[in-house]
Amino acid sequence: MAEPDQTPVLPERDDEDDAYALRDDVIRTIRDAVESEDREALVAALEPLHPADIADLLEQMEPGPRQRLIALYGTEFDGEILSELDESIREDVIASLPPEVLSEAVRMLESDDVVDLLEDLEPEQQDAILEALDRPERVAVQRALSFPEGSAGRLMQREVVTAPQHWTVGDAIDFMRARLDLPEQFYHIVLVDPRHRPVGHVTLGKVMSSDRVTPLIDLQEPSFRTIPAEQDEEDVAYAFNQYHLISAPVVDEDGRLVGVITIDDAMIVLSEENEEDLLLLAGVGDESIADRTLQIVRQRFPWLLANLATAILASLVIAQFESTLQAIVALAVLMPIVASMGGNAGTQSMTVAVRALATRDLTGSNAFRVIRREVGAGLLNGLLFAVIMGVIGWVWFGTLMLGVVLGLAMVINLVVAGLAGVLVPLVLEKIGVDPALASGTFVTTVTDVVGFFAFLGLAGILLL
Amino acid sequence: MAEPDQTPVLPERDDEDDAYALRDDVIRTIRDAVESEDREALVAALEPLHPADIADLLEQMEPGPRQRLIALYGTEFDGEILSELDESIREDVIASLPPEVLSEAVRMLESDDVVDLLEDLEPEQQDAILEALDRPERVAVQRALSFPEGSAGRLMQREVVTAPQHWTVGDAIDFMRARLDLPEQFYHIVLVDPRHRPVGHVTLGKVMSSDRVTPLIDLQEPSFRTIPAEQDEEDVAYAFNQYHLISAPVVDEDGRLVGVITIDDAMIVLSEENEEDLLLLAGVGDESIADRTLQIVRQRFPWLLANLATAILASLVIAQFESTLQAIVALAVLMPIVASMGGNAGTQSMTVAVRALATRDLTGSNAFRVIRREVGAGLLNGLLFAVIMGVIGWVWFGTLMLGVVLGLAMVINLVVAGLAGVLVPLVLEKIGVDPALASGTFVTTVTDVVGFFAFLGLAGILLL
Repeated sequence: MAEPDQTPVLPERDDEDDAYALRDDVIRTIRDAVESEDREALVAALEPLHPADIADLLEQMEPGPRQRLIALYGTEFDGEILSELDESIREDVIASLPPEVLSEAVRMLESDDVVDLLEDLEPEQQDAILEALDRPERVAVQRALSFPEGSAGRLMQREVVTAPQHWTVGDAIDFMRARLDLPEQFYHIVLVDPRHRPVGHVTLGKVMSSDRVTPLIDLQEPSFRTIPAEQDEEDVAYAFNQYHLISAPVVDEDGRLVGVITIDDAMIVLSEENEEDLLLLAGVGDESIADRTLQIVRQRFPWLLANLATAILASLVIAQFESTLQAIVALAVLMPIVASMGGNAGTQSMTVAVRALATRDLTGSNAFRVIRREVGAGLLNGLLFAVIMGVIGWVWFGTLMLGVVLGLAMVINLVVAGLAGVLVPLVLEKIGVDPALASGTFVTTVTDVVGFFAFLGLAGILLL
Repeated sequence: MAEPDQTPVLPERDDEDDAYALRDDVIRTIRDAVESEDREALVAALEPLHPADIADLLEQMEPGPRQRLIALYGTEFDGEILSELDESIREDVIASLPPEVLSEAVRMLESDDVVDLLEDLEPEQQDAILEALDRPERVAVQRALSFPEGSAGRLMQREVVTAPQHWTVGDAIDFMRARLDLPEQFYHIVLVDPRHRPVGHVTLGKVMSSDRVTPLIDLQEPSFRTIPAEQDEEDVAYAFNQYHLISAPVVDEDGRLVGVITIDDAMIVLSEENEEDLLLLAGVGDESIADRTLQIVRQRFPWLLANLATAILASLVIAQFESTLQAIVALAVLMPIVASMGGNAGTQSMTVAVRALATRDLTGSNAFRVIRREVGAGLLNGLLFAVIMGVIGWVWFGTLMLGVVLGLAMVINLVVAGLAGVLVPLVLEKIGVDPALASGTFVTTVTDVVGFFAFLGLAGILLL
């Protein structure tokens, strides 16, 4: 009876993948509305969509239709769409919004979203948006911008619900009832000492389910941690993920409360950091699917140029063995195999190491063990592939010694690949360079050079 | 005055990186305590650490000392350490815990953590843990395990705070005060209809700051979304990230409430999915820094074997041109450059495409545009590198025509790399294969084969 249940696995998976994708018919309705300049139909089609989905839609459109959609949508354009937009087209979209639409859109945003919006804009666009804000909000935004880019101070929201540490549940509830300007989302009441330094926090759930006379301090969460305002947002995201924080107060150098970071902000940072590492490892910078051809050429050219330099280095190694190659042309046929296997093995070790450095799983205390393990794995895989390739080389070209050379070169290159794969990221991290950024180039340079040198060098010694 | 401020950038960055890393002296104290079998010192050193940090520490240790630490730590061993442990060593650790320590540790866990713990264990270990639980909790765990692996039903917690949709703020507060078994963490009160189907939710903050007579339904959040229990956890994580959800009710096929998922669970899934994609793209499976040498050899061997097959395919192409290579040995020196540049350009396009598929930014509606853009970028970068490499080839070997051949091959291979880099993941996604899993092998096969064929083929036509 299991069979019939298992049949629809593939189509089902397909359906699930599209669980939150924009439906094709919705996209078509929107495109049609833009083409026929039917404002009513456009507003009706966009209205049920979440701003994040509208932003995705704009990112996926060609620049021309995108402009026409924005012009047609007019005053309905929501500030939240702006904060959801990818940076790559945000400037374009802001530039194409009429000033009154822009200022209306921005006025609706929370101050931390405005900060996020402003960060990557040109000074003129920044000024235009700042002017649209009311004075208190402008001051809040400017104060946030005074923290370094990518710091906890930029990420936090300034609105925090606090209570003196000696308050009871009843005090807190009366106080909250009386306040009109509570933040949109908050999960904890932060307990502060008389100098406004956070000493603990209490979840709203505990407050709600306790008697009015209970001191707040008795309901404190054990997971309480504060975050320095200057801390890198990457570390903030790590702390939220590692310690399962929901919200954490941000403090200045004197330990005084200046704001609060919530898990939803940390989740966005975590997702961006992961994306950045993934793209950097592949030799792609801060690229988006909405970028134009010229932008991506400009982004990728430097990486390819670096790769060209390392490829030429490898060619220079090969050039040292021209006479060997001239004598045995089979070497030219087989040599890319050694380099390719080394490159792949090196990339495997390197990716595991880069990821482990990012998650703090690779540290000084286990580095030596990891290096030993990678070299051991390289040796073992090298021996396995030495046998396989040795036999293939022998059978293919009928020369036993050619198989031996191929096998030896394979062992050498896979051991070196394992070593380089973990050493390169470790050294880069130590000297303060992002290992995701530069490891790939160094590792494949090592495996290419060693691969060609070992194979052709051994061939020169053993075959000529 | 700017200079002195900028000097300490490197050491500072280093400090920040270590913001949440375990301090070396703490690790040393712990190792010393284990070696000298000083239980008191061990407990004192571990006590201030978060279970997640203790789990990291265990992952970083050698199997021997790890066993000794666990034996020495004894009954202090906390269930939360188990749920924080990487799956790769979880089985080992569970096997080495005395039964009474294990059952005590597990009894302290929330039911969703027990589910997470059980999923990857052998049946005997599962039974041992299930038997340690009290009956109501065992039933809850077994019910969760009846949902498919990796589904929302496995991820959710069953404890939800609900209220009939007609209740007021006062009703809700009185009800919560009276309940003794409120969940540890909750952020929303879910409003349900008489058939227990969720119709909306209200944040605790809104409840706290509103008058007792306010109907709950007036305080509903606009962001409300329900999640089907069968939904893939990857889609759940996407929805939380895309729509900035904090918690979302899970419903069965009839729309009835069965549990709730909170953002902290979604964050863990998001982080795991990102890690999986990163490792898969590099040809590494579900690997951890705690794995032993033999485990990683077993993990990586199949990927290297697949790479060997593609490398041999490339060699077969080269073998077709043995006579050309025999005539002009310079071709053997230069040919890896063409393949390497193609492989890198293809990996760039592919990584962007795989990531965009994962984030739903690459869809049917913009696929054609992205393909056109990648081919355009390949052409442009190809032309740039054709000029650079053409000149280098010409100057290096003194043959203009060799430069022309190199340049033409470069253009062809970079265009093909752009095309394959986006088409391969798109096709794999379409036929239901994870594009992160298999794209790399296909793309580099294409660029290797095309690179060698174009370069050596053109050389045969134009140079001989």
